[in-house]
Amino acid sequence: MTQTGTERGFPVDEFEQRTQRAQALLHDNGLSALLVCTEPEVRYLTGFHTPFWQSPTRPWFVILPIEGKPIAVIPSIGETSMNETWVEDIRTWSSPNPIDEGVSLLSNTLKEVLELNQKTSNQSLQIGLPMGSETHLRMPLMDFEQLNKKLDPHNFVDATDIIKSLRCVKSEREIVKISKICEIVSQGFASLSDLLSVGMTEREAFQSFRLKLLELGADDVPYLVGATGPGFSDIIKQPSDRIIEPGDLVMFDTGSTYDGYFSDFDRNMAFQFTTDAAKSAYEIVWQATEAALKVALPGNTTSDLWKAMGSVLEAELETNDSVGRFGHGLGMQVTEWPSNTRNDETVLNEGMVLTVEPNLSWGEDYVMVHEENFVVRADGVELLSRRASPELEIIN
Amino acid sequence: MTQTGTERGFPVDEFEQRTQRAQALLHDNGLSALLVCTEPEVRYLTGFHTPFWQSPTRPWFVILPIEGKPIAVIPSIGETSMNETWVEDIRTWSSPNPIDEGVSLLSNTLKEVLELNQKTSNQSLQIGLPMGSETHLRMPLMDFEQLNKKLDPHNFVDATDIIKSLRCVKSEREIVKISKICEIVSQGFASLSDLLSVGMTEREAFQSFRLKLLELGADDVPYLVGATGPGFSDIIKQPSDRIIEPGDLVMFDTGSTYDGYFSDFDRNMAFQFTTDAAKSAYEIVWQATEAALKVALPGNTTSDLWKAMGSVLEAELETNDSVGRFGHGLGMQVTEWPSNTRNDETVLNEGMVLTVEPNLSWGEDYVMVHEENFVVRADGVELLSRRASPELEIIN
Repeated sequence: MTQTGTERGFPVDEFEQRTQRAQALLHDNGLSALLVCTEPEVRYLTGFHTPFWQSPTRPWFVILPIEGKPIAVIPSIGETSMNETWVEDIRTWSSPNPIDEGVSLLSNTLKEVLELNQKTSNQSLQIGLPMGSETHLRMPLMDFEQLNKKLDPHNFVDATDIIKSLRCVKSEREIVKISKICEIVSQGFASLSDLLSVGMTEREAFQSFRLKLLELGADDVPYLVGATGPGFSDIIKQPSDRIIEPGDLVMFDTGSTYDGYFSDFDRNMAFQFTTDAAKSAYEIVWQATEAALKVALPGNTTSDLWKAMGSVLEAELETNDSVGRFGHGLGMQVTEWPSNTRNDETVLNEGMVLTVEPNLSWGEDYVMVHEENFVVRADGVELLSRRASPELEIIN
Repeated sequence: MTQTGTERGFPVDEFEQRTQRAQALLHDNGLSALLVCTEPEVRYLTGFHTPFWQSPTRPWFVILPIEGKPIAVIPSIGETSMNETWVEDIRTWSSPNPIDEGVSLLSNTLKEVLELNQKTSNQSLQIGLPMGSETHLRMPLMDFEQLNKKLDPHNFVDATDIIKSLRCVKSEREIVKISKICEIVSQGFASLSDLLSVGMTEREAFQSFRLKLLELGADDVPYLVGATGPGFSDIIKQPSDRIIEPGDLVMFDTGSTYDGYFSDFDRNMAFQFTTDAAKSAYEIVWQATEAALKVALPGNTTSDLWKAMGSVLEAELETNDSVGRFGHGLGMQVTEWPSNTRNDETVLNEGMVLTVEPNLSWGEDYVMVHEENFVVRADGVELLSRRASPELEIIN
């Protein structure tokens, strides 16, 4: 299979490289295996890609041994799909089975994997499992307790940093997919002046934008929030039946997807006219973004991005902590590690895909958010979103 | 606020009733409070509704004391949205803050709630937390360990059955929303003969159906799987670039949403002509569905539904366990408790919304799935999906 621009999926060597990087990190950390059970991690190691994860009924597990390919321990409903991936060792149980929801099969498989590394019969080995910041365990807690008992004397240790360092740096093939969805969403934002008008409801505005993104080639629009009005304090809002009036601002923020990779940026516009206060707030967040993009260089940190934005936002910085950060990682999820915060201090590396997202309190308890997506290159940023207008755009 | 057919959200008395039912169950189980941290449970108790949950960065918590309203312990980015709900006691922290991601605020709030019930200073009280089948803990495991230490001598006990019994029976207001999305999807399926044709790619077929559902009034189409071909073994499949040929079958299965409530049913059709084997497989799963709908009466069980379908599927029953069940609950999630399995034995009650979903192995490793959605009424089922044609429909 040749891999050009926006073909679907990845060739096997993408997964081989991910696996090799992961296994090197397991080795460095003295771990004998890695266990993952969340959608992005399973997809990262295997390529398994289905919206079926929305059903909470069945857990899914992938074990990465210290050597060799990942092993899938999954409900039999997923066997055919998993067989389409590069994974060869696929073990299934008939699910749902609340009495033993894969726990025995998983513990037996883990023990089998660990025994290959065991030097003495009672040696306690460590299995990496993401247990830290931004992670969760997608299996019933009572089943996890059972699993721990069955695995004794082996135990789980936190592997968050391993997963984080793997996923933060994107391959060129991943960047192509993120770039594609960012271009589609940029086109969608460019068409807002044709789509939206005074007199529409907020709900109609949302739906016309969602449809446009799909028509332009987005696979899906899983994340769409926004608001209309003279200003807004709720930046994760769902649409209402509010009717758009002259002078209103509109903000849309979308995480749309192409082949399982997200864009995540917003745009602000005004209908017919606007206020000096809105213009000024817009220009400050635009300038804050500009400042961050200038320092997004390999070797600098996420906290350098935060400081660059903070220095433009100036006095507002101390009082406005509701969002908690000025951007984040982007890829298989709409937000990923790291966070651009005062003390995150993640070192930027080539191939990291990030958002910068300064926000400013203004007017009557309003918040103005601005966001761009980019990849860190050796000589600075490569923008993936089309840079927003430096001045608040007026439409219709 | 008056509540007619498909108005958005719920009036406060909906949440008051949910809270009263939950608190009665807490009382019956000797629990002093309930903690939830997953999207459907938080939304069920508060009305908080946002796609922001897709960001894995921040945990969200809601505590239900044994008396009074729920208490929200959430990242400050959600404060404005939570303020729109009926919840009054909203406690926030600036997130992300990996050093203390809400753990101190949550443990302090829980202790405050528990102290109201404490008879002696060292009394150990129990907090309900869903830890069983179909649940997971949406917070980092290491933070949960910290939380347990901070709460000593109090501890968490499984509250899965409480949440399950609350959510399985829907209010009439919830049923109206599920009914609305089922009708939209029924209209969408009825239009497939206009939308699809031989020569389209599978991917084009998917996207035209997704767009049609949105145009018909679905808020979103979070779940869409399907396949085309002479038959298919993968029933959770994403589209490929395969070109539809005369004689192909098409299957779409969608969980679409209206105001946060799901439909979940599929349809099978054939292009231009089909085989006797496909017709026969279709008719068997249609008849199996018919048999289940006849026994979906209050007092019968999910296992009675399974047996009714099994008796039609006959010999296939023993060999085909890949799906693991013949339908499930439906509501705020595309699948919910209970499961129609041999040994689930959940007693059907009025107001339960369920799917029946028999599947049959046929032909060359193919699977034929058929699904309908309904609510259990005193005198039998009220179908929410428009009943599929008893014979395999031929289009274009």
